[in-house]
Amino acid sequence: MKESLINKSGRHFLQIPGPSNVPERVLRAIDRASIDHRGPDFAKLTFRLLEKLKWIFKTSQDVIIYPSSGTGAWEAALVNVLNPGDKILAYETGFFASMWKQLAETIGFQIDWVESNWRHGVDLDAIKLKLEQDTNHTIKAVMVVHNETSNGITSNLFGVRKVLDSVNHPALLLADIVSSLGTCDYQHDEWGVDVAICASQKGLMLPPGLGFNVISEKAKIAARKSKFKKYYWSWEQIMDLNKKGFYPYTPASGLFVGLNESLDILQEEGLEAIFKRHADYSKATRIALDHWGLENYCKVPEQYSQSVTAILIPDGYDADQLMAAILERFNMSLGSGLGKLKGKVFRIGHLGDLNELTLLGTLAGVEMGLELCGVPFNKGGVQLAMNFFTSSQT
Amino acid sequence: MKESLINKSGRHFLQIPGPSNVPERVLRAIDRASIDHRGPDFAKLTFRLLEKLKWIFKTSQDVIIYPSSGTGAWEAALVNVLNPGDKILAYETGFFASMWKQLAETIGFQIDWVESNWRHGVDLDAIKLKLEQDTNHTIKAVMVVHNETSNGITSNLFGVRKVLDSVNHPALLLADIVSSLGTCDYQHDEWGVDVAICASQKGLMLPPGLGFNVISEKAKIAARKSKFKKYYWSWEQIMDLNKKGFYPYTPASGLFVGLNESLDILQEEGLEAIFKRHADYSKATRIALDHWGLENYCKVPEQYSQSVTAILIPDGYDADQLMAAILERFNMSLGSGLGKLKGKVFRIGHLGDLNELTLLGTLAGVEMGLELCGVPFNKGGVQLAMNFFTSSQT
Amino acid sequence: MKESLINKSGRHFLQIPGPSNVPERVLRAIDRASIDHRGPDFAKLTFRLLEKLKWIFKTSQDVIIYPSSGTGAWEAALVNVLNPGDKILAYETGFFASMWKQLAETIGFQIDWVESNWRHGVDLDAIKLKLEQDTNHTIKAVMVVHNETSNGITSNLFGVRKVLDSVNHPALLLADIVSSLGTCDYQHDEWGVDVAICASQKGLMLPPGLGFNVISEKAKIAARKSKFKKYYWSWEQIMDLNKKGFYPYTPASGLFVGLNESLDILQEEGLEAIFKRHADYSKATRIALDHWGLENYCKVPEQYSQSVTAILIPDGYDADQLMAAILERFNMSLGSGLGKLKGKVFRIGHLGDLNELTLLGTLAGVEMGLELCGVPFNKGGVQLAMNFFTSSQT
Amino acid sequence: MKESLINKSGRHFLQIPGPSNVPERVLRAIDRASIDHRGPDFAKLTFRLLEKLKWIFKTSQDVIIYPSSGTGAWEAALVNVLNPGDKILAYETGFFASMWKQLAETIGFQIDWVESNWRHGVDLDAIKLKLEQDTNHTIKAVMVVHNETSNGITSNLFGVRKVLDSVNHPALLLADIVSSLGTCDYQHDEWGVDVAICASQKGLMLPPGLGFNVISEKAKIAARKSKFKKYYWSWEQIMDLNKKGFYPYTPASGLFVGLNESLDILQEEGLEAIFKRHADYSKATRIALDHWGLENYCKVPEQYSQSVTAILIPDGYDADQLMAAILERFNMSLGSGLGKLKGKVFRIGHLGDLNELTLLGTLAGVEMGLELCGVPFNKGGVQLAMNFFTSSQT
Repeated sequence: MKESLINKSGRHFLQIPGPSNVPERVLRAIDRASIDHRGPDFAKLTFRLLEKLKWIFKTSQDVIIYPSSGTGAWEAALVNVLNPGDKILAYETGFFASMWKQLAETIGFQIDWVESNWRHGVDLDAIKLKLEQDTNHTIKAVMVVHNETSNGITSNLFGVRKVLDSVNHPALLLADIVSSLGTCDYQHDEWGVDVAICASQKGLMLPPGLGFNVISEKAKIAARKSKFKKYYWSWEQIMDLNKKGFYPYTPASGLFVGLNESLDILQEEGLEAIFKRHADYSKATRIALDHWGLENYCKVPEQYSQSVTAILIPDGYDADQLMAAILERFNMSLGSGLGKLKGKVFRIGHLGDLNELTLLGTLAGVEMGLELCGVPFNKGGVQLAMNFFTSSQT
Repeated sequence: MKESLINKSGRHFLQIPGPSNVPERVLRAIDRASIDHRGPDFAKLTFRLLEKLKWIFKTSQDVIIYPSSGTGAWEAALVNVLNPGDKILAYETGFFASMWKQLAETIGFQIDWVESNWRHGVDLDAIKLKLEQDTNHTIKAVMVVHNETSNGITSNLFGVRKVLDSVNHPALLLADIVSSLGTCDYQHDEWGVDVAICASQKGLMLPPGLGFNVISEKAKIAARKSKFKKYYWSWEQIMDLNKKGFYPYTPASGLFVGLNESLDILQEEGLEAIFKRHADYSKATRIALDHWGLENYCKVPEQYSQSVTAILIPDGYDADQLMAAILERFNMSLGSGLGKLKGKVFRIGHLGDLNELTLLGTLAGVEMGLELCGVPFNKGGVQLAMNFFTSSQT
Repeated sequence: MKESLINKSGRHFLQIPGPSNVPERVLRAIDRASIDHRGPDFAKLTFRLLEKLKWIFKTSQDVIIYPSSGTGAWEAALVNVLNPGDKILAYETGFFASMWKQLAETIGFQIDWVESNWRHGVDLDAIKLKLEQDTNHTIKAVMVVHNETSNGITSNLFGVRKVLDSVNHPALLLADIVSSLGTCDYQHDEWGVDVAICASQKGLMLPPGLGFNVISEKAKIAARKSKFKKYYWSWEQIMDLNKKGFYPYTPASGLFVGLNESLDILQEEGLEAIFKRHADYSKATRIALDHWGLENYCKVPEQYSQSVTAILIPDGYDADQLMAAILERFNMSLGSGLGKLKGKVFRIGHLGDLNELTLLGTLAGVEMGLELCGVPFNKGGVQLAMNFFTSSQT
Repeated sequence: MKESLINKSGRHFLQIPGPSNVPERVLRAIDRASIDHRGPDFAKLTFRLLEKLKWIFKTSQDVIIYPSSGTGAWEAALVNVLNPGDKILAYETGFFASMWKQLAETIGFQIDWVESNWRHGVDLDAIKLKLEQDTNHTIKAVMVVHNETSNGITSNLFGVRKVLDSVNHPALLLADIVSSLGTCDYQHDEWGVDVAICASQKGLMLPPGLGFNVISEKAKIAARKSKFKKYYWSWEQIMDLNKKGFYPYTPASGLFVGLNESLDILQEEGLEAIFKRHADYSKATRIALDHWGLENYCKVPEQYSQSVTAILIPDGYDADQLMAAILERFNMSLGSGLGKLKGKVFRIGHLGDLNELTLLGTLAGVEMGLELCGVPFNKGGVQLAMNFFTSSQT
């Protein structure tokens, strides 16, 4: 990479909404000789990891780790608990919900798709209506993205569970928590999620390469009945071998060592402190963008994401050009608009291994980029974010 | 991991047949800040990697990289070029061939399984007979494991292609080259392999986490016709986005940086030198085991693997106990017997980032282990291996 | 260290004026197996380093590398070119000039000390007067600190050479360039410096542990005549063995590998770009502090340091308390006031591996710290620094 | 370094008697962002280190850490406790004793030099005679190298103390323990050593760059009376600032973090286990060389070093050529003959982070090198070393 980083001194500001910055301790943990994935040390590591993962997911249930991206974990969730052709109720919260839907359709499920405009989270009433209408319980699962990374919107996941319960609908609740875990509260057992899908490269502060399925007792039962043909994604053989501390095929053992370290870091800080930090970063970012006179893509305040903020660029300007200018001039990567948002929004990732000064440098980079690109805005956003940090009781 | 390595000074001898030892340079390359997988630097890296990979696979065709284990790449190969229910001719070279067969059956293919005793490679005559009998060309693909990691046997892969051609059979040739690539010759285009399956953690000297499919023009055409429902494994969207240097979902970007470095290392040494080295290690290992009076599990000399040697332990002894003693006493991990070979064989991995002194230390560890466990054997195997190294014109 | 960093997420802002931040590439270069300091690879490395060092020091003369701090290199310079009891003319630019003077006195030299108030650099007229009065040439050397790290003042080093020449005084010119090298121009040969003293942990972007003496032909001749008893610091044996690529005692070989990498990075960026960058950081910092209404400890604009800015805290406030609050609350280390400046100034290091966003985060941390500690100041310094960066033609 | 390591696969065998191999954990610990050497985290680290160092030196006294090589620590010991012109009794145990003597003479001490042939350790009777004759107590110190790295000979250091006591001589006992610490027993307080000189790159398993002085109460008193002019090496200012956790000049803080980790590793293993290990490696090496028919340079069995073995090459052969061949062909560095031993001996370092398999690989490399170079020897040394390891009750 040396070639492309010439003349770029200092640390790159990686402020995309994941892969997030990997702490030094985690990078160093990964940087060690490979271990025998069939030996006793690895088994000990597996047991330790599976235990610690229960802590962060707030569950007493099984956690499956795949050598995969989050997309793989999406696929895994579906093929383990459903049968080919099953109907799934899904809500269009944004780009990733749409991708998940597309995946599900592609591999043979019917999607009952609640369309929406990507500017707010799951509409519980719409979900409720759909479920009530489904008197025959043809809907086998509900797919919800907890935090939409594409537009910075967090849906009321527990609300979906309550809706399911309120109408006594037996559908499984499948939740994508890829970019929410470790940035805002997630309570697997309490919220009654049946399969949660997660990945390593966001709040877990690891490089990409691990996908997760966190399951419920009900999901386990459904899995036993599933006729979907699967091998790589099959929970059964993984859970079997996990009992001995092993995996049915070569796990991404380097990342396992890193995960052990990142979970230690998270435990040392404590989840409440972590969530508070993310809430602050998110709030400070909004204070800046409000002052700039730019529009938060998320229209519902209580749904503002704690991990990422998507910002609309005024008409006539191109968010991709802004991002390119900021990368070139200030050595900072931001998230681009995805799908129909391409060129229309840019996204500030404020998740994971981060602190106030890095966030303020980030906001400064955005503010300067706006100026350099001639986007109309009011100066002073960074200053207000600073005021927020000095006034908040963090 | 600290806990379990107390009192173990010095470097662990990881002599399993993969994950192999990762060179310092590769570990350090991986140990760096995450990069934006949608940014220009990543695109440059992707282009560079895809080009270098063609060099090592000896192909001008496309290479698909998955965030997965080799098992995932097995599944990917099948679901991209075949249709549900298709018949596949497969040969029982050993444990991994059997696992691949099981995978294929599980996800819905019919396997025409040529049983064998795991002590020799693919019988070309048996293959030929099967193909000749298949006058209707119901066999859509032939699955072959180039190098069986479970028993140290390398099959004549090019021979299978010649047999297919000699009987004008249109079946696709699918080859598992996970533990052969980078240890002995593999010529993707010349040998007419349609889909090669590989992984990062053996001859490529990386941690596990990347799976590969190397494809042919014919495979690409088959892929277009495949009705198999797939999303994660679909080549199409990957090849599309690869044109811009990107991936449809978050790639294991940390390993990409490592792969770039490991391919540099391999290019600096040169493939011929690498193959010669592996041939020597393999030969030295056999000289030792012959002298010890132990039996190579592979019965056919021209099929001896260059990456791993499986050794039968005499009746009445347990290979797993031997391995446990060697791990405990000499801090060395060897490969265990898999499947029906459990307890009957142990395997010495001699692939990847290795040199003569490490191999001699390895053989010394095995010889001392045999003694400590009371296994009957003749001392002096290490000495003969040393003689080989001083006499050979390496 | 883990213990003390609990609850400190994100990257520590190390904005002291050295040790400066070590680039990832340099840290990774150091993180490798030790090499034989008497073997052929090490000799090659030495030759390469000594050549590259000539480039950065702008010299064709010898460079001596010690396993030492900069203080060791101070001592080395004196004991190699002078005789016990020799008189040295030295100028009180600040804390480090005073320390160097103290060192020189302690080991037996007479110091003709030009007192000053630490708020400006070397007064060339004062130097000239002293030299003119020294008609017998009893002054054997002039000691000058090029950039005073303690107060952010850069003296006109070339001016001192011109003064020496103008009065035809044969005294050697000894210059401490510890915190100037790699941040502003330094021309060893052109400026006629006889011994330059440098260290690894500032503009060279390495961890501390290497001291340097860069010498002139005249210094080499003086060294031959020196009767000062020395062994560790003796140039002679080092220069002798350097011809073969070796050292008379074990060099800090790990840092040698890092130095090789850091010099590569510096060459890739180019000295002019590096100096421009530092000038900008320095200017932006002053813009902020001027707006805050705080006072730059340096009173002479043309002597503002490009690597560090020392800021007076208003009467009645304690700079150490401010720094402690910033460390505790914002995870940033600043430089404290040294010697008589303790509690009165704090210093912002803006040297080495740095970029605008990090500097803006730094300034934001200072501005917020001022607010939290109730120090009277005008808000808006960060904003003005941003304006500077967007308006400057960097 | 990349250039010179082309075609050298596998891990380099660094079997010189220091710098020894640095454990992965220590390298990774060093590979981290610099810390503020004047901040609270650094102070905590210093306190922790100074405490742990007492454990390994078996002392309750002060330990001084220098940014220097061991040679610097030699000089430091002398200039702190002696006065210019003082007489020192020193014993010619080998090359390093001679170098230390030369250093002492060069900086102005008189050496009463007991000549010897480098093939045995300190002759206590000779020491006793010298001390008895010194009725006026003109001898102010006795300099002894505990373990001579140049020839693999360990002297009876405690014996020297007993001799001093038996003749009631007040001379200070100065001991070089650079290559003994962490490989065989050293008891600073119990043995009455007044100043011990050590360095980081041997038994402490760190890269070079730290020198140590371990002192006694008596040495502290002598230091107060010393008129030797010194600054860099002065204990006083270091001990003063150490009380607050700091140093008078920039310490090699990167290595401090590594030292913290290496001391943890040593404590986890335990000193008795470490010494046993080294005794075994040393014994196994001697078994091999005896069988080869080569001669141990050390003539006195009870003085065989546990960290290094020096081996005489038969007349007519050149040890340097042997070493070059082994480096070129087997990628292993051994120690060369120093001073008058150049070309006559080669040295096998067997200290630090090591295990049996690495040692056997090392011995195999030597045995194969002997063969390749046509040196007359008996094959089978490695085999006997293996027999030793399987028979010993390690």
